[in-house]
Amino acid sequence: MGNQEMIVAFQGEPGAYSEQAVRQHFGAGIQALPCRGFVDVFKVLQEGKATHGMLPVENSLHGTVIPAYDLLVDHDLHVQAEVIVRVEHCLIAPAGMKLNDIKQAWSHYQALGQCEQTLRRMQIEPITYYDTAGAARDLAANPEPNTAAIASALAAETYGLEILVHNLEDEAFNYTRFFVLGDTPPARDDPSKTSIVFTTRHQPGALFTVLAELAQRDINLTKIESRPRRDRPWHYLFYVDFEGHADETAVQQALLGILKSASFLKVLGSYPAARD
Amino acid sequence: MGNQEMIVAFQGEPGAYSEQAVRQHFGAGIQALPCRGFVDVFKVLQEGKATHGMLPVENSLHGTVIPAYDLLVDHDLHVQAEVIVRVEHCLIAPAGMKLNDIKQAWSHYQALGQCEQTLRRMQIEPITYYDTAGAARDLAANPEPNTAAIASALAAETYGLEILVHNLEDEAFNYTRFFVLGDTPPARDDPSKTSIVFTTRHQPGALFTVLAELAQRDINLTKIESRPRRDRPWHYLFYVDFEGHADETAVQQALLGILKSASFLKVLGSYPAARD
Repeated sequence: MGNQEMIVAFQGEPGAYSEQAVRQHFGAGIQALPCRGFVDVFKVLQEGKATHGMLPVENSLHGTVIPAYDLLVDHDLHVQAEVIVRVEHCLIAPAGMKLNDIKQAWSHYQALGQCEQTLRRMQIEPITYYDTAGAARDLAANPEPNTAAIASALAAETYGLEILVHNLEDEAFNYTRFFVLGDTPPARDDPSKTSIVFTTRHQPGALFTVLAELAQRDINLTKIESRPRRDRPWHYLFYVDFEGHADETAVQQALLGILKSASFLKVLGSYPAARD
Repeated sequence: MGNQEMIVAFQGEPGAYSEQAVRQHFGAGIQALPCRGFVDVFKVLQEGKATHGMLPVENSLHGTVIPAYDLLVDHDLHVQAEVIVRVEHCLIAPAGMKLNDIKQAWSHYQALGQCEQTLRRMQIEPITYYDTAGAARDLAANPEPNTAAIASALAAETYGLEILVHNLEDEAFNYTRFFVLGDTPPARDDPSKTSIVFTTRHQPGALFTVLAELAQRDINLTKIESRPRRDRPWHYLFYVDFEGHADETAVQQALLGILKSASFLKVLGSYPAARD
């Protein structure tokens, strides 16, 4: 997929886990464009400064990334693929520093939390930083004695730091799922998945009626989540993923059925399922 | 509810939003016990050092608090009530400081993110801190020129700081839902809600079969969320809340029906629904 004209926008500093997702999916040669916030990823896509976006939508430890879904609902982009990235935190430091020298580590508070027990065992004090890759960049620019950063292997490579310890995380079950966003739907490549967002009318069984449209056609759900709507308290928005492609007759019939009982339905996209 | 022997454990520093939930639910006179982590809330309850716990389970902007649910599944406590707290961030500073003097504000990165636009308009630089109430405490102990903290009104009161601005948050729709935990089930006080966690066998329609047990008895879902299981990839855990009490015949029949198709079912509790 090494197309020269592709530019993939992601949120974060160079070396962020989102950039790692870009490389995992598109290959190392791809041009990646760092953006300050999620909203900027959508903005550069709309302005034509990027052809694709890489957006984190859920993490196995922290759950759904709600601001990402809010933006998906508010914009008209297609989900072209899903990418699942194993989050591996590395203890990284300027060349020449030894593990025994390290007394403190800078990183994002969530990353520090994920390495808490390991850091305690190693007697390294966690220091919170706004961003994992930002900690690596600043440490590379201004090395401090006895100080390391905790970030991705890509951040070490990006800022010329050395990896002292791999897999610092306490819990191996740490995956982030990303959506690849683009202007057009992707070519069908089964097995496919489809992601939709809908609201139901506020009545007992309304959600059930919607799910029946999928179940009676043997369409398997792979994600379901409700959350209160911002604008109308006690009304709910549902995020649902299922197996199948919106070009299939069964899926089309299910979507038409859902439209009958949903007060709002948006198809975020049909895309090839990530391999396990 | 001002029982003298009640001690309510919460995660965070004194003045944290969780302590505000304790006061909102139990009254200002209640004894509250700050704990370092969520797991410590469960520990002090098991050791009899506290009679109740106050645990955040979801936030309207950030979604479900997954580590809280993991602990609920691993422990045998009863959900005795739900408490919904409106998150109102205050800009607070030592007495005598004026709003015009403030050039930077310390707070937890999530709180800073929720006040981003307001801070930019006020030309106040956000400085990340590990905790909102911790920022207030440290600022009170060691005031710095031109520096405020962003935390709860309770944190201002707790550490003797003054509130310069109320409702600093960009988005008013910011609520956190808490569970009150205890050793015993609460007295029934309808309208009730029931919270369950279950897994389904891995087959199309298994979730649907479970939800049918509720829908066919006109039991209304108020929350549903799936997440992958830690121990078995591609198997799912479901968090479901519905209206009704586990003492009702319809709910009991639904739970028995769910047991037939779920591979695991845990009732977290039946409790009085929070008033809107």
